[in-house]
Amino acid sequence: MSLTPEQQAEIDAQRAGGAQTLRAVSPGMEAHLYKAHEVLDHGFVRVVDYMGDDAAICQAARVSYGKGTKSVQNDEGLIRYLMRHWHSTPFEMCEVKFHVKLPIFVARQWIRHRTANVNEYSARYSILDREFYIPAPEHLAAQSVINNQGRGAVLEGEEAVRVLDLLKADANRAYDHYEAMISQDGQQGLARELARMNLPANIYTQWYWKIDLHNLFHFLRLRADHHAQYEIRVYAEAICKIVADWVPFAYAAFEDYRMGGATLSVRALDCVRRMLAGEEVTEETSGMSKGEWREFLAVIGAKR
Amino acid sequence: MSLTPEQQAEIDAQRAGGAQTLRAVSPGMEAHLYKAHEVLDHGFVRVVDYMGDDAAICQAARVSYGKGTKSVQNDEGLIRYLMRHWHSTPFEMCEVKFHVKLPIFVARQWIRHRTANVNEYSARYSILDREFYIPAPEHLAAQSVINNQGRGAVLEGEEAVRVLDLLKADANRAYDHYEAMISQDGQQGLARELARMNLPANIYTQWYWKIDLHNLFHFLRLRADHHAQYEIRVYAEAICKIVADWVPFAYAAFEDYRMGGATLSVRALDCVRRMLAGEEVTEETSGMSKGEWREFLAVIGAKR
Amino acid sequence: MSLTPEQQAEIDAQRAGGAQTLRAVSPGMEAHLYKAHEVLDHGFVRVVDYMGDDAAICQAARVSYGKGTKSVQNDEGLIRYLMRHWHSTPFEMCEVKFHVKLPIFVARQWIRHRTANVNEYSARYSILDREFYIPAPEHLAAQSVINNQGRGAVLEGEEAVRVLDLLKADANRAYDHYEAMISQDGQQGLARELARMNLPANIYTQWYWKIDLHNLFHFLRLRADHHAQYEIRVYAEAICKIVADWVPFAYAAFEDYRMGGATLSVRALDCVRRMLAGEEVTEETSGMSKGEWREFLAVIGAKR
Amino acid sequence: MSLTPEQQAEIDAQRAGGAQTLRAVSPGMEAHLYKAHEVLDHGFVRVVDYMGDDAAICQAARVSYGKGTKSVQNDEGLIRYLMRHWHSTPFEMCEVKFHVKLPIFVARQWIRHRTANVNEYSARYSILDREFYIPAPEHLAAQSVINNQGRGAVLEGEEAVRVLDLLKADANRAYDHYEAMISQDGQQGLARELARMNLPANIYTQWYWKIDLHNLFHFLRLRADHHAQYEIRVYAEAICKIVADWVPFAYAAFEDYRMGGATLSVRALDCVRRMLAGEEVTEETSGMSKGEWREFLAVIGAKR
Repeated sequence: MSLTPEQQAEIDAQRAGGAQTLRAVSPGMEAHLYKAHEVLDHGFVRVVDYMGDDAAICQAARVSYGKGTKSVQNDEGLIRYLMRHWHSTPFEMCEVKFHVKLPIFVARQWIRHRTANVNEYSARYSILDREFYIPAPEHLAAQSVINNQGRGAVLEGEEAVRVLDLLKADANRAYDHYEAMISQDGQQGLARELARMNLPANIYTQWYWKIDLHNLFHFLRLRADHHAQYEIRVYAEAICKIVADWVPFAYAAFEDYRMGGATLSVRALDCVRRMLAGEEVTEETSGMSKGEWREFLAVIGAKR
Repeated sequence: MSLTPEQQAEIDAQRAGGAQTLRAVSPGMEAHLYKAHEVLDHGFVRVVDYMGDDAAICQAARVSYGKGTKSVQNDEGLIRYLMRHWHSTPFEMCEVKFHVKLPIFVARQWIRHRTANVNEYSARYSILDREFYIPAPEHLAAQSVINNQGRGAVLEGEEAVRVLDLLKADANRAYDHYEAMISQDGQQGLARELARMNLPANIYTQWYWKIDLHNLFHFLRLRADHHAQYEIRVYAEAICKIVADWVPFAYAAFEDYRMGGATLSVRALDCVRRMLAGEEVTEETSGMSKGEWREFLAVIGAKR
Repeated sequence: MSLTPEQQAEIDAQRAGGAQTLRAVSPGMEAHLYKAHEVLDHGFVRVVDYMGDDAAICQAARVSYGKGTKSVQNDEGLIRYLMRHWHSTPFEMCEVKFHVKLPIFVARQWIRHRTANVNEYSARYSILDREFYIPAPEHLAAQSVINNQGRGAVLEGEEAVRVLDLLKADANRAYDHYEAMISQDGQQGLARELARMNLPANIYTQWYWKIDLHNLFHFLRLRADHHAQYEIRVYAEAICKIVADWVPFAYAAFEDYRMGGATLSVRALDCVRRMLAGEEVTEETSGMSKGEWREFLAVIGAKR
Repeated sequence: MSLTPEQQAEIDAQRAGGAQTLRAVSPGMEAHLYKAHEVLDHGFVRVVDYMGDDAAICQAARVSYGKGTKSVQNDEGLIRYLMRHWHSTPFEMCEVKFHVKLPIFVARQWIRHRTANVNEYSARYSILDREFYIPAPEHLAAQSVINNQGRGAVLEGEEAVRVLDLLKADANRAYDHYEAMISQDGQQGLARELARMNLPANIYTQWYWKIDLHNLFHFLRLRADHHAQYEIRVYAEAICKIVADWVPFAYAAFEDYRMGGATLSVRALDCVRRMLAGEEVTEETSGMSKGEWREFLAVIGAKR
C-alpha cells in the first residue's frame, strides 16, 4: 500500500470538492484527478492538475478567438495532420501536473528529460520513509546475454531467494543506521543532508512533475517503449492510460504515428522499394550492418 | 477597436459557458478569462486558460498530498520566503495561456523570451488584416540624446504631423500592394509566403503564448520596467494587472522583491555600509564608473 | 555583394591568425571559419566558432578519460548506432556559432527554434542598412493551388515585372522615409525604436546564433526539407554543407536516418507488410486518409 | 586518489598534443584543459573543451564581423555594463564542457539545473567502481538547530567515530552484495540495471556536463553560495577558479554584481533610504518579517 489513511483522506477531500470554471474541461481527466494509480510495490502516479483538451490543441493551431468553426477539417483530422507533419507547438498548449512516488534509481532516469518542471521532496530538509522497492519474483531478471543494456531470463531457485534476501536486508540495515545517525536522542545527531548518503537507490522519493503534452509524448515514446527498463516503463504505461482519457484524439494519433510507428533510413526505404519491386534482398545486398538488418526485419514483418 | 462583432460574439459565448471542475480555481482569474484587454490602437491581451493558484505554489513546495496543513508557516509567508530565496521551481507549477494581438516589431522583442510556447498566426497560410500600429501623438518620441537605446522628448509641431503622415501612408500603400500582388483576379497571384515581405513591422500579428509563472515574472521584470520600449511595456503592464488578480500573494512578493527591488554590487554594498557609518562617499571614492554611480544614487534615494 | 571591403578585411585578418590549442580540432571546419558563404541576394552564413568533432561525440557517449580505445565498436559505427536509437545527448556535446545575415521574414521563422542562443543586431540602438531581399525571377512563385502553405508555378510576363517593381519601389520608399524620420538635420528626429516600424519584412538583419549539434540537426531536418520555404531552405542547405565538413560521420548518419528517412505509422507499416505478403492494398483498404495515402505512396516508391 | 595510472596516462597524452586553430583561444583555459582538479575524497572536475573568451562575449554583443574596434567602450567596461543590466545573451555565447566525478547524492542536486547537456556513465550498461564518499572528520556535521535545511556543529567524540564506521561498513557491505548479485560465477547473475539499486547515494558516478557561461554563472551563484551543501559547494568553488582563468573580465563582473552582491526588496530599499536620512529604523518599523530583518542587517553591515 502506497498511501497512509491520512493521505487517502486528503485525496478524498479533494475529490469531494468541485467548483465552476469557464476553462476547457476534460471529463475523462476529471475522473482521474487526485486519484493515486499504484505502480510497483509502494509507488504511484496521480494527476494533480491539467490545462487544455483536444479542442484546445486545435484552437491554438488556428489561433482562434472562440471554440472555432467545426468546418471541413474537423478536430480529429486536424490533430492527426499536426502529429503526422511534426507540428509540435499546438501540442505544447496542453499541460499536466503529476504527483509521483518512485524509487530513486527510477527518478534518476526520469529527470534526464529536462523539459519539465520538478519539485522533489527534500531529504536535506525532511526525513525519508522506510519504503524500498523490492522486485516481485517475476521481475527479478538476469543480465541479458545479447544486450549489454538490458535484462534476460528471470532468476530462478536459490539465486532468486538469495538476491531478494540481500536486497531486503541491506535496505533495512541502511535505514536502521540512517535513523540511528540522525537520532538526537543522547547525541548531536548527524545532519540530514549527510545521513541520506547512506540510503540505497531503491528507497522511494516523490515529486511534483509538470510537463506539456508534446514533451510528455516524447517521454512516453522513450519510456513506454519495450526497450525501457521495466521499473520506469510501468510508470509510463500508467501515464499512457491517463492521457488516453484526457485527450483521446491526440493520444490515438500519438499511438499511430509515434508509439507504434517506425522510422526507416534511406537504406531501409531503398530495401522496401526493391522488395516491393520483387527483388530478393539479403543482409549482404541491403547495405546495412548486422544490427540494422535485424531491426529492419522486425519492422517490416516479424514485429506485430 | 481590436475585435470584430463576430469575434466578440465568440468570446461572449465562451464566457457564457461554465462547467464543474475538481481543479484549483482562481476566482480572480475566472473574471478575466477570454476577455480582451485592449492595448495600443488595435492590440489586446486575453487569458485563454490557466493552471494553479497561490495555494498550488505552496502545495508543490511542500510536495503535499492534499491542500496541506495551514500550520505556522502560512501560504503568504511561504510564498514570500520562496521568492526571497530564489526558489523558483514552485512558481513554475502555475501556467497561463494568453491570446495576444500585437505589432510585429513588438512580437520580435517578445519572442526572445524562449522559455514559452507559441503558436503564431501564419502569414504563409493566411492573409493578414489591414491593421497597423500608429503611435498616439503623445508617444511619438524623439531619439534620446543621453541613451542610444531609448527615446526622449515628444515630437512637436510639423515634424510630428509629417511622421504620422509618412507612417500611415507607407503602411497603407504597402498593404494595397500586398493585396494587389496576391490577388488571383486576372493573374496568377504571388504566393502569400512571398507577398508578406512587403508588409512593414507595424502590422499586427497574433499568437497564443503559454508560459509558467516563474518565467512570466522574469518577462514582466524586464518588460514592465521603465527602460523597456513603451510599445511592449503596455502589454506587460496589462499582464501585471491580470496576474495580480490570479495569484495575489505571489504577485505581491514579486512586486516587493523583484519589480521594485534592486541588486547592489559588492562595491555598492560597500558604499552603503560606509555611508551608514557616517562616511561621505563620492563618485571618486566609490570605486564605481560614472554610469554605475548615477544608477547607485537613484537606487538609494532619488528613485521613488 | 553582402560584405563591404572593410568587413572582408576584418574577416581576412581573422583567417590570417591562428594559435596553438589542446582542444579537439576539426580540419574541415577550420577551413570554413569566418568565411562568409553567400545566401540570397545580400545574406550570408559564416562559422564564428565551434566546439568538438566526431571523436568528441564518442568520447561523451563513453564518458571517457582520454581519446578512448578504438575497439571493436569504432567511432563511425557508434555514431550510426547513437543516431539510429535516438540517443541524442552525445550529439549535444558539439556546439557551433554562426554569424548570419538574413531578411527579417526569414529571421521570424528561424527564431521559432528556441533551443539556441541568439544575439541580434539592435534596431533600437543602431540604424539598419538599405538592403532588401528581392527574389530572383526564378523564385518569384505563385500561390500553390493544392497546398495552402506553399508556392506553385513561377510568375510570368508582366505580372512578374509588376511584382518586382512594387517590391523594389516600396522597400526603397520605406527606407527613404525611415531615413527622413530619424534625421536630426533641422528637426528632433524620431526615435530609432519607433522609426524601424516603417521598414518592410524583407530588410536584412543579422545575428550571432549558437546551437548544439543535436538541435541543429533538428533545425536542418525541418528547414532543409523540400516543404520549407525556399528563402530559409537555402540557409539550411548552406549550413548542411558546413556540417558535413565539420563532423562527417555524424552528418552522414543524419542524412541516412533523419534527412532522407521516413517515419511510417502503424497503418503504414501494416500496409507495407501486407504488400510484401503479396496483397494488393488500395487507398480504400489502407485505412488511411486521402492525404496520408498520397504521402505513403511517395515514401515507398515515387519519392527518390 | 581519484585517477588510475591508466587514466592519468590518457590525460597526459591529451595534454602532450596540440594543434593549430583559427578560433579564439584562452591561454588561461588551455593551462587547465584535461587536468583533473581533485574534489572530495575520490572526485574531480576537469575541463574537456571550451568555446570563446572575454572578447567573444563582446563580439556577440556587437554582432561584429571581426575582432571589433577597441573604441571608447573597451571590452572590460562593456562586460561590466552587460552584467549590470542583466543582458544575458552575450554570456550565452561562451560554452564549456566538464568531466566530473561526484557522489550520486551530489549529482542529484546538480542535475536540477536543466539548462545543460549531460552524458552520465551508465550503471545499466557498466559496473560501478567501489568508491564512496566518506566525509572527512571536520565535515561530519550535526543537523542545524536553527535551519531545517542545513548543518551545525561538527560531530564529536564517539558519535563521530560511530557514524564514520557505519558509513564505511554499510557502503562496503552494499558493494560486496552488489558484486555478489551480478556475478555470473556459478549462477545466472542479476541484471546490472537491477543490482545498482542496492548501492548507496554516496557511491561515485561521473558525467560529461556542458553548459553556457550565463547558465554556469547561475549555477555558481547558487552552488558556490555559503548556503549550499558543502559537498556540492566544493565542486562549484573548483569551477569558479577555472572560470576566473578562462574569462577574467566576465568572472570579475560576476563576482562584483552577482556572487558578492545582494538584492534589496522595496521594503529594504526604503529602510536604507530612511537610515541614510538619519532615521533609527528597527525591526518593528521596518515592515519586514523577523527573518527578512535578520538577513537585511547582514547585508548592510555584519556580512563582510
